[in-house]
Amino acid sequence: MATATAEANVQTAKDVLEHWQGHRRLTRRVIEAFPEDKLFGFSVGGMRPFAELAWEFLRMAVPIVDGVSTGKWEEYKGPKPTTKSEILRLWDAQTAELNAKFPQIPAHRFSEVDKAFGQWEGTGKATIQYAIDNEIHHRGQGYVYLRALGIEPPAFWERG
Amino acid sequence: MATATAEANVQTAKDVLEHWQGHRRLTRRVIEAFPEDKLFGFSVGGMRPFAELAWEFLRMAVPIVDGVSTGKWEEYKGPKPTTKSEILRLWDAQTAELNAKFPQIPAHRFSEVDKAFGQWEGTGKATIQYAIDNEIHHRGQGYVYLRALGIEPPAFWERG
Repeated sequence: MATATAEANVQTAKDVLEHWQGHRRLTRRVIEAFPEDKLFGFSVGGMRPFAELAWEFLRMAVPIVDGVSTGKWEEYKGPKPTTKSEILRLWDAQTAELNAKFPQIPAHRFSEVDKAFGQWEGTGKATIQYAIDNEIHHRGQGYVYLRALGIEPPAFWERG
Repeated sequence: MATATAEANVQTAKDVLEHWQGHRRLTRRVIEAFPEDKLFGFSVGGMRPFAELAWEFLRMAVPIVDGVSTGKWEEYKGPKPTTKSEILRLWDAQTAELNAKFPQIPAHRFSEVDKAFGQWEGTGKATIQYAIDNEIHHRGQGYVYLRALGIEPPAFWERG
């Protein structure tokens, strides 16, 4: 019985994408909540401003899905956004791109071990999970920046 | 083909527990990294000190697994820890308890919709996922506290 439960299918590929897009909608609201100058210039404890963190998320999301899907790992090539509206425009473009590309990931690639970007070894599932966890982690950092600025962050539990 | 991939089993119950325990090991290191007085007294932007966040994680983890497992939702009953060593002792006790109880969750409960603690409606899977995400989110907040204190936080990617 324990074995049957251990192997129970808890999350399908569709669930992972929906969960990620829910988090990405919340992250988008966090980006929006920052005044433009604070997005690029404010931080606490010598850490990176939230625009740098958003840029990190953008450089990870689609390249990771491409890599898991195809086995070819290529760095993100687009120019670094310099305004809030550019970040949001890129964000929305990636939302659509993820929705189009994620369902094309061959099922076996989620459990196959690969070396992401030639460096990080893990299953496709673990690499995608890392991207999501990394976004949650650094977004939590953004919540502190917003609070330190006296700005109410968006509700963590709202993902719609 | 797209449908087959959408339904691909990306995460088993065993994967979820391992993923969570990896995050819990990291959270434990973050708790340890705080000096005792800062754990209970330091914060940024009027937010809760990290001891309060750790206490929130402790009140969620086992009660959620119990609730998902049995359909009975009961608040955590133990006394609130007042020292770092008490928090860590509880943490380790819950690590063992989660390892014992998680594999006993009946497979169908992961997809069954329930109302956690009579309030939050979602599948068992979503409720457990929420507990993990909430821990990652608030731990990210703890990283800012540590940096603001001039303390190097543990590496995010190390989960062993």
